[in-house]
Amino acid sequence: MNSFGKLFRISIYGESHGIDVGIVVDGCPAGLPLAVEDFEADLGRRNPPTAGTTARKEDDRPRITSGLYQGKTTGSPLHISFANRDLQSEVYERIKHTPRPGHADFVARRKFGGFADNRGGGHFSGRLTASMVAAGVIAKKLIQPVSIAARLLEVGGREDIDAAVEQAIHSGDSIGGLVECTAQNVPVGLGEPFFDAVDARLSHLLFSIPAIRGIEFGAGFQAAKMTGSEHNDDILDPEGKTETNHAGGINGGISNGNPLVFRAAVKPTSSISLKQKTVDITTGGPVELQVSGRHDTCIALRMPVIFEAATAIVLADLLLLEQLIPRIWKS
Amino acid sequence: MNSFGKLFRISIYGESHGIDVGIVVDGCPAGLPLAVEDFEADLGRRNPPTAGTTARKEDDRPRITSGLYQGKTTGSPLHISFANRDLQSEVYERIKHTPRPGHADFVARRKFGGFADNRGGGHFSGRLTASMVAAGVIAKKLIQPVSIAARLLEVGGREDIDAAVEQAIHSGDSIGGLVECTAQNVPVGLGEPFFDAVDARLSHLLFSIPAIRGIEFGAGFQAAKMTGSEHNDDILDPEGKTETNHAGGINGGISNGNPLVFRAAVKPTSSISLKQKTVDITTGGPVELQVSGRHDTCIALRMPVIFEAATAIVLADLLLLEQLIPRIWKS
Amino acid sequence: MNSFGKLFRISIYGESHGIDVGIVVDGCPAGLPLAVEDFEADLGRRNPPTAGTTARKEDDRPRITSGLYQGKTTGSPLHISFANRDLQSEVYERIKHTPRPGHADFVARRKFGGFADNRGGGHFSGRLTASMVAAGVIAKKLIQPVSIAARLLEVGGREDIDAAVEQAIHSGDSIGGLVECTAQNVPVGLGEPFFDAVDARLSHLLFSIPAIRGIEFGAGFQAAKMTGSEHNDDILDPEGKTETNHAGGINGGISNGNPLVFRAAVKPTSSISLKQKTVDITTGGPVELQVSGRHDTCIALRMPVIFEAATAIVLADLLLLEQLIPRIWKS
Amino acid sequence: MNSFGKLFRISIYGESHGIDVGIVVDGCPAGLPLAVEDFEADLGRRNPPTAGTTARKEDDRPRITSGLYQGKTTGSPLHISFANRDLQSEVYERIKHTPRPGHADFVARRKFGGFADNRGGGHFSGRLTASMVAAGVIAKKLIQPVSIAARLLEVGGREDIDAAVEQAIHSGDSIGGLVECTAQNVPVGLGEPFFDAVDARLSHLLFSIPAIRGIEFGAGFQAAKMTGSEHNDDILDPEGKTETNHAGGINGGISNGNPLVFRAAVKPTSSISLKQKTVDITTGGPVELQVSGRHDTCIALRMPVIFEAATAIVLADLLLLEQLIPRIWKS
Repeated sequence: MNSFGKLFRISIYGESHGIDVGIVVDGCPAGLPLAVEDFEADLGRRNPPTAGTTARKEDDRPRITSGLYQGKTTGSPLHISFANRDLQSEVYERIKHTPRPGHADFVARRKFGGFADNRGGGHFSGRLTASMVAAGVIAKKLIQPVSIAARLLEVGGREDIDAAVEQAIHSGDSIGGLVECTAQNVPVGLGEPFFDAVDARLSHLLFSIPAIRGIEFGAGFQAAKMTGSEHNDDILDPEGKTETNHAGGINGGISNGNPLVFRAAVKPTSSISLKQKTVDITTGGPVELQVSGRHDTCIALRMPVIFEAATAIVLADLLLLEQLIPRIWKS
Repeated sequence: MNSFGKLFRISIYGESHGIDVGIVVDGCPAGLPLAVEDFEADLGRRNPPTAGTTARKEDDRPRITSGLYQGKTTGSPLHISFANRDLQSEVYERIKHTPRPGHADFVARRKFGGFADNRGGGHFSGRLTASMVAAGVIAKKLIQPVSIAARLLEVGGREDIDAAVEQAIHSGDSIGGLVECTAQNVPVGLGEPFFDAVDARLSHLLFSIPAIRGIEFGAGFQAAKMTGSEHNDDILDPEGKTETNHAGGINGGISNGNPLVFRAAVKPTSSISLKQKTVDITTGGPVELQVSGRHDTCIALRMPVIFEAATAIVLADLLLLEQLIPRIWKS
Repeated sequence: MNSFGKLFRISIYGESHGIDVGIVVDGCPAGLPLAVEDFEADLGRRNPPTAGTTARKEDDRPRITSGLYQGKTTGSPLHISFANRDLQSEVYERIKHTPRPGHADFVARRKFGGFADNRGGGHFSGRLTASMVAAGVIAKKLIQPVSIAARLLEVGGREDIDAAVEQAIHSGDSIGGLVECTAQNVPVGLGEPFFDAVDARLSHLLFSIPAIRGIEFGAGFQAAKMTGSEHNDDILDPEGKTETNHAGGINGGISNGNPLVFRAAVKPTSSISLKQKTVDITTGGPVELQVSGRHDTCIALRMPVIFEAATAIVLADLLLLEQLIPRIWKS
Repeated sequence: MNSFGKLFRISIYGESHGIDVGIVVDGCPAGLPLAVEDFEADLGRRNPPTAGTTARKEDDRPRITSGLYQGKTTGSPLHISFANRDLQSEVYERIKHTPRPGHADFVARRKFGGFADNRGGGHFSGRLTASMVAAGVIAKKLIQPVSIAARLLEVGGREDIDAAVEQAIHSGDSIGGLVECTAQNVPVGLGEPFFDAVDARLSHLLFSIPAIRGIEFGAGFQAAKMTGSEHNDDILDPEGKTETNHAGGINGGISNGNPLVFRAAVKPTSSISLKQKTVDITTGGPVELQVSGRHDTCIALRMPVIFEAATAIVLADLLLLEQLIPRIWKS
């Protein structure tokens, strides 16, 4: 449940206001050069110092305690953790019986019988994506020359992203966004019928990221409105290059050598400063809730690097399955 | 790879023009009443006798060879198979070096070194969904009182579905569609953090179905354009009933007791009667291809019951994980 | 539960007196030559026409319905089944409330609430090992030049095996046996720390075979009585050849290039013609039971080929994990 | 590979001389009372202050960083780690090209291309069993009223264990041992056909523990010499109580309600002070090796509590599968 992957395998743990969050990365080939500095860029992108992201600031320096020796991976599991330091937990005590709309408060309470650590969303917190980004840094190294780039297409339905965020901050509200991710140089043949199709595995990991509402590949939802003659991608050469890419680089769940392209809808942050309606679980009575504390206005701003990480993790696994990454790294 | 699920587990096999297609269903509780007749309705819906579906007609009568004794499941794996009978395989010999646009021909050839059975799409064929529907019949029985219903919302962008199909047939083209699926009476608490979120598991299985281009839950892609105050579902009572259902019945990957709602985009059938551009893999030269043979005009017509099956399979697994289905069936 | 393996994966089904027993073999590389005749020798060894094996005689001809095309594997799952024909089920109706000592009757009844198919042991029957032997035939082809050979060391504590069996038949009793299995040409490096050690994976599959009471590798139980200077295998050359082989070809759970050697204890057949004490489950009262029907005097006689199959299945999986078997077969 | 279990799931990491060793325990029900003090007794038994165990002394205080809140488990993964402090790594630099007989040095070097952390055995070290014992402490709480007790039966073939150890220390040698483990109050019905038999799952985890050479259940290897009338356990009452327990509490891979009993052979410690023959991997030439440094004379002394932990981990998983442990703990 808290593990994902067949050969490149991640096991995640941690709670937003616990001692730390972390990840065990199993199945990484031996001999891959790796240093703490390699994580800085991507972890920084996950936590951008811009308007619209939370005031909670962790330094997000990964602590690697195993699987790395003399600057190279050993072939044994890597354990990477991030200390939780900048905590303000008191607010959560106050709202523990009034589940916040849009959050996992209500379901967590029911599923775990009131024993879940509810502070900051606990195990459901976006804080855990730091670990996923860390695993993604390793995966990105492994999948070279495959390269992945994600970007925000729009926020709140607008392409002028700064203005949209500004307006949401001003109104005490939050705002959703649309992200596109592309992987170049993906070899033909990744993905395993019947249930480990590239799109199936990718969507599995992507929907595990909190706040995702939809995923589409290639022409996506537009394909539902198209005819076959419009949608089919004509094949241009024996390497499978196609004229268009409505398939998003995938046929029958297998990569076809064209760029892998998908988009995902990110919902607006659930925490807003405006008043919302909920109930007091202990009394059953209605409550008007105003969530204070620190939160992002637009979590979509953090998403591109998280999507890249998820994509790299899935591709590393599928490349290992296809024996296109060796078990001992050749640099 | 050809298995899916943790406790309610399916293993699929078969090729479109092989001897049969089938499935092993493992983890079904003992004592569930089951008869061959139980499969008729859903298998019939998968193969509707309407315009727009293929002229290949299999009787689709399931053969159950294990796991069933004196009208009840035994607790051991069920094996269910469907004979392939109405075959016209010659056409595929002719086109084996000219991969059909939109199909898995090209990727299958490369991934399996030319050894894949290419007739009728082989293992990539929609024919395998008969097995998934069969497993879904069993799963639907197990998950009661949860009930699932899927329906076509539009075809080719039009709600007048018959007319849209008629027009596509007339023009020798194919056409996509949009399907919505809803599950009622889903208990609170299904789904397992971090990687077995309800939406994550569902999308994994749904994208395994050939021809899916996008999945969205609740407000879906519209959520990307919304503010938090619009998108958040106000909580109305201690059972978690919400005023709106933009979350599609899921918070933090866990079912929240409201109806589970998702939509999926189905691409147009890849096989069309119109001429298309491809290459001859052996010579590298361009080829103008016209696919003859029998095929659906609109595979979306078959999808509702397949989506229901996939949803039931995932929910049966999650209900078993949550110990809400007993290991010995109580009727 | 009824599946085993990570990359070379088997899913088993069937009951002794059901319609058939079978197996889905997933993960076999494409392009491996395979014919029904390839199975004859090993299936024959599992069912030897000698004194001491059951009078039930099935022809054990495998039916392969998928994954094979034009004499070669396709890369999709192989489905192999064996019809059950020579059945005499009536006897089991008579004893269904009096669990036979040594058999799974009692536990099956409790675990599956009385719904298990109890005829001939149902899903617990040794009949299912036919499927395992079939998967082993495929695995043996894949792992070449690794070669596996198992043999009976003794029966009932005696090396004169024919005489020991003869005596047991004469006394209406059954008899156990000791089997040794050796794999030659195993490359260095198979096995995955921490939990997929060669011995761990092998013992898992071997103990799944009905009637096994013990497994030991190399010096085995004798090692408990040895000193380190006696037990350690001196290393003779840079390829890891050792002077002795007390480790049974495994260090730290990883194959070391020396022959893999293990022995297993097979219990006497539970069915005997002599009177035994049990209870009537419905009344709780004591019963003196005399099992009629057909049964082996010494199941150990069938075991060598089953052990070879299990070993080949595990090694095929580990060789794929180590990328020493390619995904497209090179003949 | 470094994960084990289906519902109660452990993921292990760490190297003997790395920063720490640790484990992620996933699937533990929410609400289980747990404190650092609960680990003391079992961790102390793993590291007894007696003659015959290594001079390396770690305090083995577990650090729990997630999954625990206000003294109870949260339902999210527990992360437990142990710092490595008392290290003397220099000796390993000296012997890195001369693999020690009996150790994993040679196979680790080959499997991981020389990148494995060889100090103290690295990831192959018995040090990792501290994490397994920690997981076992949690599992033992969950499986109540099942109780597990393991003990040394003999060392070096002698029941006078102190004397046998003393003699081995005196001669600069090491010595093996025989351990027996018994679980009482195991309910009928644990174990899942076909491949998750109780004995299959137990042996899988037990053989993952370094230094195990053999496992036998009930009558074990003696069963190979017995007749059916001797070996079969007469059934005495409707709860399945048997007169003898040659089956070791297991029929057909399923627990039968009688005590679960197995024995395991532990090889002598590979490190000894006496001279041994090996090769220099870089030159291929023979080397006479004398291993200095700190090591156990008899690792079997540490094994009972490790076996108990492994047994508890397997039983916790099987009890969850059988829905006999609830997902929210009832104290």
